[in-house]
Amino acid sequence: MKEIYCGVDIGGTKINVGLVTKDGEVLIDEKFETKSELGEEYSINNIKNSIDKLLKEKDFEVQDLKGIGIGSPGPLDSKKGIIIDACNLKPWKNVKIVDELKQKYKDIPIKLQNDANVATLGEYLYGCGKECDNFVYITVSTGVGGGAVVDHKLQIGSNSNAFEVGHTIINLNGRTCNCGNNGCLEAYASGTAIAKIANERAKDEETLMSKDGDIIAKDVFDYAKKNDKLALDIVKNEGFYLGVGLFNVIALYNPDIIAIGGGVSNALDMFYDEIQKTLDKMSLDASKKACKIIKAKRKDCGLIGAAALSFYL
Amino acid sequence: MKEIYCGVDIGGTKINVGLVTKDGEVLIDEKFETKSELGEEYSINNIKNSIDKLLKEKDFEVQDLKGIGIGSPGPLDSKKGIIIDACNLKPWKNVKIVDELKQKYKDIPIKLQNDANVATLGEYLYGCGKECDNFVYITVSTGVGGGAVVDHKLQIGSNSNAFEVGHTIINLNGRTCNCGNNGCLEAYASGTAIAKIANERAKDEETLMSKDGDIIAKDVFDYAKKNDKLALDIVKNEGFYLGVGLFNVIALYNPDIIAIGGGVSNALDMFYDEIQKTLDKMSLDASKKACKIIKAKRKDCGLIGAAALSFYL
Repeated sequence: MKEIYCGVDIGGTKINVGLVTKDGEVLIDEKFETKSELGEEYSINNIKNSIDKLLKEKDFEVQDLKGIGIGSPGPLDSKKGIIIDACNLKPWKNVKIVDELKQKYKDIPIKLQNDANVATLGEYLYGCGKECDNFVYITVSTGVGGGAVVDHKLQIGSNSNAFEVGHTIINLNGRTCNCGNNGCLEAYASGTAIAKIANERAKDEETLMSKDGDIIAKDVFDYAKKNDKLALDIVKNEGFYLGVGLFNVIALYNPDIIAIGGGVSNALDMFYDEIQKTLDKMSLDASKKACKIIKAKRKDCGLIGAAALSFYL
Repeated sequence: MKEIYCGVDIGGTKINVGLVTKDGEVLIDEKFETKSELGEEYSINNIKNSIDKLLKEKDFEVQDLKGIGIGSPGPLDSKKGIIIDACNLKPWKNVKIVDELKQKYKDIPIKLQNDANVATLGEYLYGCGKECDNFVYITVSTGVGGGAVVDHKLQIGSNSNAFEVGHTIINLNGRTCNCGNNGCLEAYASGTAIAKIANERAKDEETLMSKDGDIIAKDVFDYAKKNDKLALDIVKNEGFYLGVGLFNVIALYNPDIIAIGGGVSNALDMFYDEIQKTLDKMSLDASKKACKIIKAKRKDCGLIGAAALSFYL
């Protein structure tokens, strides 16, 4: 008997659907645009059609499908299987996505979980979290998010909102974050923050980067490679701020491994030393010694983690 | 057949030994001075003698004892049962306390865990954590410590150092903490910090408190009750800083309940509103709504948690 699992990774711009084995091998997958503005029915139909198409292309029957897992931006109610009102999926409101899929795939376990938790699960089970007791995944891209595995179990929290690490406060009188708070990790270490800080500083400081307010995070890393002084300093600060955020995570979770993923992690080599230097200056030696900070391995952790949801949680 | 458990709560100044039922009822207990300066043999002998004495006084046999749990200041190695070099237990070094007790109580499970984790377990099982999925205990006294229960399970971390909440950084350029870092929660919200801040500010500001540098935290709360303006402001700030620390805990753990214990929590009523006001101004509504902040119920959570260690972990 065949055993395959379906992962559905819902993002603000794209949905990724794939068929995955229990070992985390993606047999087939496809991406299509979310277009949440066309309403949830449109997207849910696309998901159903995609599942059917992928099954057919790989010569599977619906009976071979042992579970469907969905990762979605939150807030959501994972127990009831409802996406409440994710700001990246406007104008969806209280979308009962699990019930909708249940209508078609009646006897198959279907689970919903927030996207960062799902990606954490994927990296934990199939990436660099394997064989860890305590594992943390942090994604640094537009925002800063992630998830934690505490004693072999994915941390969910009382209403699926655990590990909002991007909004932990590291500098209480500091920069204002998109969330309205001051001094969030995300206001310093996200890709958005890197761009914002670069545009602010470029106005007054010597740099080869644009002075027109249109610098993006990638530019900062590119110019740092060309030894632009300002770009280099911003990249160094990225290591420092992320280092402080990681220190707090180490202090609380005492993990074996923290894996860094997300777009900004592509440049991790450029600020890894500064993360370590920042941590070296700080206390809690026993916890720091126990923890390795490494680059996440699985770019597809959102998809494979979603597939794993159905048998793992 | 009788079933009793022995809790051993080791502190820098006193050791508390007690016989406890599985329901968390303390049948008998006693306290004696630690006197760690006299060497570990002295204290360990006192613990053994105390256990024997308490058993005898309650007409129990050694066979009735189903487990011994020990809570101790860290760092420690809970797997090997070793207290490594707790700074409150000088000059102890690598004290194999579990093996020592095993020599006398051969067939009884004996467990060691750090004191804050043990207290968390006690409050979780027998205090205000009952029936919680996700629970956090924070003790505010000389320092700020605590523990977390994640999905019904005490968070330990990879080497028993999880939940060092007092050393999470909330203000990266802020006050220097005893640990050497800047901006730790403990440098703002502990009893020690309250006293330190009061002594600093009393020099320059109008107050009825002492100007001789000898204010202790209790004085600040006493003078606040007498409407001393400076004392009132420091108490208010306690609520603010603790509020920021709790916000970070809520963001990461998404708990149902945070229980505040420790000496400073005796005055919780005086700064509870300021904690709430601080949280009200901040983001993450869903997580905040899910979480109640309350005063811990069990003053003896260190003892009953230690007793519970032997059957819980």
